Amino acid sequence: MMFVYLNGEYIPEENARISTNDRGFLFSDGIYEVIRSYDGTLFEPSAHLARLGYGARALRLTETGFDYLPEVASELIRRNGLESGDATVYIQVTRGSAPRTHRFPPKDTPLTVYVTVRRFNPHDSEQQQGIAAILVPDQRWARCDVKSTALLPNVLANQQAVDAGAFEALFVREGMLMEGTHSNVFVVVKGEVITPPLTNYILGGITRGVILELCHKLRIPHRETTLLSSDIPEMEEIMIVGTTVEVTPVRKILNVNFQNRDPGPLTRRLQSAFRERVRQGTAGIRV
Amino acid sequence: MMFVYLNGEYIPEENARISTNDRGFLFSDGIYEVIRSYDGTLFEPSAHLARLGYGARALRLTETGFDYLPEVASELIRRNGLESGDATVYIQVTRGSAPRTHRFPPKDTPLTVYVTVRRFNPHDSEQQQGIAAILVPDQRWARCDVKSTALLPNVLANQQAVDAGAFEALFVREGMLMEGTHSNVFVVVKGEVITPPLTNYILGGITRGVILELCHKLRIPHRETTLLSSDIPEMEEIMIVGTTVEVTPVRKILNVNFQNRDPGPLTRRLQSAFRERVRQGTAGIRV
Repeated sequence: MMFVYLNGEYIPEENARISTNDRGFLFSDGIYEVIRSYDGTLFEPSAHLARLGYGARALRLTETGFDYLPEVASELIRRNGLESGDATVYIQVTRGSAPRTHRFPPKDTPLTVYVTVRRFNPHDSEQQQGIAAILVPDQRWARCDVKSTALLPNVLANQQAVDAGAFEALFVREGMLMEGTHSNVFVVVKGEVITPPLTNYILGGITRGVILELCHKLRIPHRETTLLSSDIPEMEEIMIVGTTVEVTPVRKILNVNFQNRDPGPLTRRLQSAFRERVRQGTAGIRV
Repeated sequence: MMFVYLNGEYIPEENARISTNDRGFLFSDGIYEVIRSYDGTLFEPSAHLARLGYGARALRLTETGFDYLPEVASELIRRNGLESGDATVYIQVTRGSAPRTHRFPPKDTPLTVYVTVRRFNPHDSEQQQGIAAILVPDQRWARCDVKSTALLPNVLANQQAVDAGAFEALFVREGMLMEGTHSNVFVVVKGEVITPPLTNYILGGITRGVILELCHKLRIPHRETTLLSSDIPEMEEIMIVGTTVEVTPVRKILNVNFQNRDPGPLTRRLQSAFRERVRQGTAGIRV
């Protein structure tokens, strides 16, 4: 039996039920985070908390500080026997439960706070061999910098990838390669590592930040600038990065001329640097 | 005690709880409808069902026909003693409950189907005197033609209106006046009634369709064409239409030069034609 955390209580997952009046259910009026746990150590919990706070302020939630959540996550890891091996922590915060109306509910409406942990099977073969992706038009809203649960476009794009036999869908907005449905994208052009800059159309990925930091530390030439999807055939390497995919090479993009590319040297270098960074567990909190 | 319908059962509202694994809660992976009930008669139920089916196909739900729902709504109206006076029926359908992953769950995952009814207090004074609105940038996704529960942008825009002392926020996308957070917009220019055409950026409102039909019937000059927000000061009349607002004049738009406009003659004419249409209850189903 798995335990989850819901509004202050640790309860069996099958008892985790919310009101149909929850604004997360009615309006996607909420935010979320997914944090990786390596052998019981949370990866970059402060960065995840900071992003959750950023989203809470963007949504003007009545609470924007969630400092207690890493402790909740650690408790769930213990209770569910996930202290060793890989796991993911899922956090969701919504504006709470109230009779349906677009405007915010009364200020004393408690937020819904929900946390789960789950065993995670690392994508070893994907990271080794690389994955297939597809390009899809970016139909998402204009605040992709907010990690909200308004994920319907991501769901539809990801399923489109699955149907095409691909692992990830990469969003293209007005000719620009933006990011994946649940990953950021990095490419190599003329030996330089490039990722799109943080705008309102891109999520500030935690792994994205770590990779940029590693590039800096390793003195790998790198830059944040616009990527044109029309330049993809000339790109030397493409990789997706994120909490679950870590650093995963893109072997091919099915609907564009980028095929059968073996993972390149900079991808491999960043993979092992990332692995080392995880081993150090610098910013981690030990359960 | 209010009864609601959830997955085949009529249950007290306080028992209406869904799993935290519901994809409506995790991904806004669902669609909804709001149907007006006048003295127990549903207004345009077939049009609402058709739109629900359209959304279900857009989301590729495993079920796309919901012909039984008007009967469910009528049963709820009876059980909750709402046979007389005004009420609203809320219908929400999600892709069901499954462990969290972007891609669709297994095909045998039952959809979540949720229906409620509620007493509705008509906006009489708003319809009489007109309302204040604000213009806001349209930050929504590119499938506004799908009535999905990914409503976070609508929530934020509506609250912005409330904070400004306005009743509705009107979305402007690239200089074009599109629609409200929960209404369509009609204007009068040189005696002609105009509303934006149905594109992927506009919801095909049921009331919108009825108003166009009434214009046709009454031989009021009318057209579906792009509205520029820069032309607002020269517009003779502006009104919002929808299931809850019916036909409501816009008296002023706070952040643009459109102030203290008494409801105009075409607005009044459409209001009474709409009222008459409701009285006839032509397409209604009697409880």
